[in-house]
Amino acid sequence: MTISYTLKVANARFGGFSKLLFRWKGSIYKLLYKEFLVFVALYSLLSVTYRLMLSEDQKRHFEEVALYCNKYTDLIPISFLLGFYVNLIISRWWGQYTNIPLPDQLMCVVSSNVHGADEKGRLLRRTLIRFANLSSVLILRSVSTRVLKRFPTMEHIVEAGFMTHEELKKFESLSSDYNKYWIPCVWFTNMIAQARRDGRVRDDVALKLLMDELNKYRAKCSMLFHYDWISVPLVYTQVVTIAVYSFFAFCLIGRQFLDPSRKHAGHSLDMYVPLFTLLQFFSYFGWLKVAEQIINPFGEDDDDFETNRLIDRNLQVSLLSVDDMYQNLPPMEKDKYWD
Amino acid sequence: MTISYTLKVANARFGGFSKLLFRWKGSIYKLLYKEFLVFVALYSLLSVTYRLMLSEDQKRHFEEVALYCNKYTDLIPISFLLGFYVNLIISRWWGQYTNIPLPDQLMCVVSSNVHGADEKGRLLRRTLIRFANLSSVLILRSVSTRVLKRFPTMEHIVEAGFMTHEELKKFESLSSDYNKYWIPCVWFTNMIAQARRDGRVRDDVALKLLMDELNKYRAKCSMLFHYDWISVPLVYTQVVTIAVYSFFAFCLIGRQFLDPSRKHAGHSLDMYVPLFTLLQFFSYFGWLKVAEQIINPFGEDDDDFETNRLIDRNLQVSLLSVDDMYQNLPPMEKDKYWD
Amino acid sequence: MTISYTLKVANARFGGFSKLLFRWKGSIYKLLYKEFLVFVALYSLLSVTYRLMLSEDQKRHFEEVALYCNKYTDLIPISFLLGFYVNLIISRWWGQYTNIPLPDQLMCVVSSNVHGADEKGRLLRRTLIRFANLSSVLILRSVSTRVLKRFPTMEHIVEAGFMTHEELKKFESLSSDYNKYWIPCVWFTNMIAQARRDGRVRDDVALKLLMDELNKYRAKCSMLFHYDWISVPLVYTQVVTIAVYSFFAFCLIGRQFLDPSRKHAGHSLDMYVPLFTLLQFFSYFGWLKVAEQIINPFGEDDDDFETNRLIDRNLQVSLLSVDDMYQNLPPMEKDKYWD
Amino acid sequence: MTISYTLKVANARFGGFSKLLFRWKGSIYKLLYKEFLVFVALYSLLSVTYRLMLSEDQKRHFEEVALYCNKYTDLIPISFLLGFYVNLIISRWWGQYTNIPLPDQLMCVVSSNVHGADEKGRLLRRTLIRFANLSSVLILRSVSTRVLKRFPTMEHIVEAGFMTHEELKKFESLSSDYNKYWIPCVWFTNMIAQARRDGRVRDDVALKLLMDELNKYRAKCSMLFHYDWISVPLVYTQVVTIAVYSFFAFCLIGRQFLDPSRKHAGHSLDMYVPLFTLLQFFSYFGWLKVAEQIINPFGEDDDDFETNRLIDRNLQVSLLSVDDMYQNLPPMEKDKYWD
Amino acid sequence: MTISYTLKVANARFGGFSKLLFRWKGSIYKLLYKEFLVFVALYSLLSVTYRLMLSEDQKRHFEEVALYCNKYTDLIPISFLLGFYVNLIISRWWGQYTNIPLPDQLMCVVSSNVHGADEKGRLLRRTLIRFANLSSVLILRSVSTRVLKRFPTMEHIVEAGFMTHEELKKFESLSSDYNKYWIPCVWFTNMIAQARRDGRVRDDVALKLLMDELNKYRAKCSMLFHYDWISVPLVYTQVVTIAVYSFFAFCLIGRQFLDPSRKHAGHSLDMYVPLFTLLQFFSYFGWLKVAEQIINPFGEDDDDFETNRLIDRNLQVSLLSVDDMYQNLPPMEKDKYWD
Repeated sequence: MTISYTLKVANARFGGFSKLLFRWKGSIYKLLYKEFLVFVALYSLLSVTYRLMLSEDQKRHFEEVALYCNKYTDLIPISFLLGFYVNLIISRWWGQYTNIPLPDQLMCVVSSNVHGADEKGRLLRRTLIRFANLSSVLILRSVSTRVLKRFPTMEHIVEAGFMTHEELKKFESLSSDYNKYWIPCVWFTNMIAQARRDGRVRDDVALKLLMDELNKYRAKCSMLFHYDWISVPLVYTQVVTIAVYSFFAFCLIGRQFLDPSRKHAGHSLDMYVPLFTLLQFFSYFGWLKVAEQIINPFGEDDDDFETNRLIDRNLQVSLLSVDDMYQNLPPMEKDKYWD
Repeated sequence: MTISYTLKVANARFGGFSKLLFRWKGSIYKLLYKEFLVFVALYSLLSVTYRLMLSEDQKRHFEEVALYCNKYTDLIPISFLLGFYVNLIISRWWGQYTNIPLPDQLMCVVSSNVHGADEKGRLLRRTLIRFANLSSVLILRSVSTRVLKRFPTMEHIVEAGFMTHEELKKFESLSSDYNKYWIPCVWFTNMIAQARRDGRVRDDVALKLLMDELNKYRAKCSMLFHYDWISVPLVYTQVVTIAVYSFFAFCLIGRQFLDPSRKHAGHSLDMYVPLFTLLQFFSYFGWLKVAEQIINPFGEDDDDFETNRLIDRNLQVSLLSVDDMYQNLPPMEKDKYWD
Repeated sequence: MTISYTLKVANARFGGFSKLLFRWKGSIYKLLYKEFLVFVALYSLLSVTYRLMLSEDQKRHFEEVALYCNKYTDLIPISFLLGFYVNLIISRWWGQYTNIPLPDQLMCVVSSNVHGADEKGRLLRRTLIRFANLSSVLILRSVSTRVLKRFPTMEHIVEAGFMTHEELKKFESLSSDYNKYWIPCVWFTNMIAQARRDGRVRDDVALKLLMDELNKYRAKCSMLFHYDWISVPLVYTQVVTIAVYSFFAFCLIGRQFLDPSRKHAGHSLDMYVPLFTLLQFFSYFGWLKVAEQIINPFGEDDDDFETNRLIDRNLQVSLLSVDDMYQNLPPMEKDKYWD
Repeated sequence: MTISYTLKVANARFGGFSKLLFRWKGSIYKLLYKEFLVFVALYSLLSVTYRLMLSEDQKRHFEEVALYCNKYTDLIPISFLLGFYVNLIISRWWGQYTNIPLPDQLMCVVSSNVHGADEKGRLLRRTLIRFANLSSVLILRSVSTRVLKRFPTMEHIVEAGFMTHEELKKFESLSSDYNKYWIPCVWFTNMIAQARRDGRVRDDVALKLLMDELNKYRAKCSMLFHYDWISVPLVYTQVVTIAVYSFFAFCLIGRQFLDPSRKHAGHSLDMYVPLFTLLQFFSYFGWLKVAEQIINPFGEDDDDFETNRLIDRNLQVSLLSVDDMYQNLPPMEKDKYWD
Repeated sequence: MTISYTLKVANARFGGFSKLLFRWKGSIYKLLYKEFLVFVALYSLLSVTYRLMLSEDQKRHFEEVALYCNKYTDLIPISFLLGFYVNLIISRWWGQYTNIPLPDQLMCVVSSNVHGADEKGRLLRRTLIRFANLSSVLILRSVSTRVLKRFPTMEHIVEAGFMTHEELKKFESLSSDYNKYWIPCVWFTNMIAQARRDGRVRDDVALKLLMDELNKYRAKCSMLFHYDWISVPLVYTQVVTIAVYSFFAFCLIGRQFLDPSRKHAGHSLDMYVPLFTLLQFFSYFGWLKVAEQIINPFGEDDDDFETNRLIDRNLQVSLLSVDDMYQNLPPMEKDKYWD
């Protein structure tokens, strides 16, 4: 489920964002707690080992290694890497959202340019807009795990009413090794061309308008496919991941509290709990988790796009507007400010 | 109220931006003073406790903790986090502003392409442009707390003259679980299709023009809805917030002035007031407040968009231009540079 | 006056940008010298006080304060703040420039689609293009101090030939509390609609073309208005300003040369002139001045847009092309490469 | 082969990106292992030399040089350089991908606007869409080494069915020193102009639609050419490369473990394997490798675009949709939600 | 000459970018060697002076100054300044390239919509496309030093065949104080309006198509002019330049090797050649040189745009396609995959 929270912080008040911290759903805590527990467990294990199980000599060695680790962890440039990487992921994430095809423009155009209040006219408008919806379902099925779960086979799409059996047969008779989401779009264009011949689309300009809107709709489907096919270069993701993971692996050792009696610089205090390291873990790992969560916004994370809800909304709304609302206008009345 | 101040700094003069510092409305002081007072209070409390209430032994402990905190606060990467985060919020903020639907283009097109100086013609033009305004009111009502306060129920929208009772009835007869802002847009398109049949829209090209402009208008409504629905991932906001809050929590301890007689490095001076920490508080917390204020620019902050004013302006201006100004032209005269 | 200097650095030669340093007009020196003098004066004052007027005891206190200040000025994150802030201002600056409405596209379209070599035709074309120019003057008057100075009242606009008295009367008869720059645009659209009826615009497609171009033109006017109305959030500007100002306020103290005989770390040398601090002043304050200068590019800074010159150019060029150049073509001849 | 991995990280789970680390194909390991081995070899060589082959005196010298190197490597600003540089390369990489011409829009338009179910009609539609595909093959051949390998001569293009022998003859009769990818586009436009005269394109609006889509298609071909011609300024790439290479060259010396008995600061521990330096090597060199891999995404890297696959897909899909699917519609049936 | 090198790094191989380092043309070495020599000379001079010519007392003074300089050079924020500045320059550079007007779209449209195989038809098409080319020559002449050298006077443009003498006379009869590149565009629009009347442009839609494409072409000319007129604010360039220059001026002193026998911290080694400072010089100054080279990409640098070559290409290609290729199509044949 998408987490919309901006309404809660509509006004910048005292405390502001702090009220966003006490949530579980979609929160950093939920995303990060497992990694956090593992980190804490490993840290404790090492801590206990150092304090209780090592001989004095081993302790001296451990201390040297710890000092060495602490000193050099800073060499790993994770702020820069994460800053630029997350920036990239965020801009792709928004790009993906804005390319989810919505039939709103198309349905306005179909509703007002494909004429005929008779059954054939209704059927034509409904079929056209159904084709558009079908195309988006086909593409979303290939990019979104949620939608694939809902429609594991083409049969499920037919059952859900996006396609008739005849259409499925025709669809499958066209063999291609590649994603066939574009087929309903071609049907759409051929069907409006035929509707133009039958006079149900009244003029060439309207035909062009329908064609233009269909093309915009199809372009969005296409972009979704490409965002899915062309991931951020794997190498980039790996570099960032290795940097963050290894940083904290070394923190396990380097941030141990060493025996204050040994007078190591910066180790005059034994607090047992490495508060700052944990905080740093939250900041950097949390930042990485932002990327993990949205690198594929079509998954099943709390904050991923609700594609199934969108599919339902689109079908409902688009059938409503091309059928029930066709030439079904409220009576014109003088408005309040008339004269 | 939107704070427009660029006119005051139109020219880069001596002092420049400094004159912007002495303002209360929409200022950082107004936004931040509560947090600032809390921070100061807590700092003072700790300071007093340390100076007056702790035993010598406890003081030594406190000093060690303070030194430890001061040393490690730098591990939290708030500059990077805030820099990239605020950048993102700002670009969404401007994106939201530029997607507020304005009827200006539509009203030009309606005024010059929907004909008839008779009452029916006037009624038609007024109704069309009213539908566009209605659509934007419906969407703004769902994203802006100010507009929702102004129009808590649909009845209020009718009273304000954006809708007639008949239209409301029709509107409510169309049941959908989703936001119905698109309904007046479908009415608009069906109404111009009818006007085309009646000859009030004289040709197919004009019809397409009207349809195109309506679609652009509707697309903006739709974007506003999506900006509202899809917030910046909650995790990102939480990570930034936790980083900033915990940074200053630790500053409360780490930036205490320790007894100079103890000769702790960097603590040879007791200034009582931690000027630099306060300044840092202003810088970082102020930066975060920028984000807090504009993450939802449809709230009631001093600097949020004046949506209600825009709604009034849009209705007034658009009725004026499609009705009073229809074919109401100044006489053509030779201009000053004629020959 | 806009400062165009890229021609001088067209080729990357030895020294390169260094030749840009010896200029006064639009230079950092001109913008910054007052602040610089104040900074130097205050620094000298403090320096003299410390060296000559303080008792030994007071000196010791001053030194401690200075060391403290010097150590903590680094806590203020001005690089990050300035980097992101100036980036934002620059992108808005270019956005504003590219939205200054230019009549070039419109004049091409008017010149070739509004027909009639008779006086009425000339009058029509001139009036249309004058309306477009008028609209841009109205909007520039509301955003640019230079243009407002040139046209303090509507009467001045009439005198300058952008408007006739009749038009002004009509303009003022339309009462609206909001900026009325859109009125000439509505006149334009109504006038071409009438020209279509009179056959001076020969077909619907040409009418649409005229309408489309007018809408693009109007959209730019509208964007200028919005850039002016919605400033960068005041809070952001204040945070940056406070950070930079307070940074240098503390530098006044922290960067004083302390008595070398006191052996303070990093104070073994007394150079009297704090070269690096002055350089830092130039860098950071200069960076801030970039923002100050272009946050409102419609002011009267050396580097602000020459709006008045643009207004003159636009009127001259557009009248020339719709009137003198109408169907006034050079004879067609075979070109040099014919066969 | 493009590496699509986002499906594997659709949900942010425990471990998250860590599962991406165990891959070879397209991985950072595969890209970097050679450089890594060279670095390790050189480091070991130096290490062995220092430990075993130098005299005491030489060791002292070496230690001084090493300390010096270690201290000053930080002067090289590689984080900043790499951050901004990779950012630039990534945005060009995506720009290139989105400009690969796909015939989907064009094929919809051809399929529904170029009429005639007879052989001539089929031939016309097939030829038109083949011209579009030919144009993209010509341009991809000039930018992609993979495509050039597949079609080393024009003859290969003919054999692959993108061109007939007659067309090749005509193509070669047009002599130009520049890339001639635009020729099939001009053929396309002339052929639809002729089809309009023959009535196979039924109206002017359809002609314009075809022309518009062809122009968009051609513009993408053109952009690919320009991305190829205008590389990121060589100087930028060189500066970044020199910085990274020299940084690690100096690390070879500066990060040697010096004899702990010499008590050099930060050299109290001899770990033999410079873990952090290797990690830093992975981070920075990996970051540079991201740029290396995608600066020309038309090469033969694991993660480069699969241009040959796209070419096949485009031809198959576009012939299918303009020929087999022409007016070949599934029968209209009432959908599931009818009434 | 533009330096296209991406083909050489199409595949990320061992060594990768390193092969780009051994080039002279367009390289950082060629751009930077003069500055580098000056820097080395000054450094050596100072070094020799310090070592050989100063008295012991003066040496002590010099050392103190050098230590002071070395410590404070870090105060100058050149990484941040250069990072954000070069980013800006690069995005303008690409913006300028993509706005160079290319006649490709226009020539497709002219070739297929301006009819007549007779001499008049040929003349018309050639003249139209020549006007477009003329317009781009006029604008490039005003922004590019290379093009201005090629066409120092209007007479040269006539001789090169872009303009006839008659056209030049008409051109000069239109007096305007501003750049007149738009005149051939107005001629173009008036000429197609006339061609429409003569029936050579067969319908209104084709006329609109021609007009639209001409407008896009003109808009690019206009953008080039504006990029040239509105430089990056001079102040920004000055701030960056001053920062970099003064940084290295102080490095001359601060990075001198001081007498190791004086035991200054970090000066235990005398290497004579300040390798890291030279490397830093390469990195930072090289970064600045990137900006210097592309701030005006219409100059005569190795990596500047080859505007003259583009002008030739455009004329040749556009005449070819509107004349020789007009209705000159290869015969339609069945393709390889027919049935």
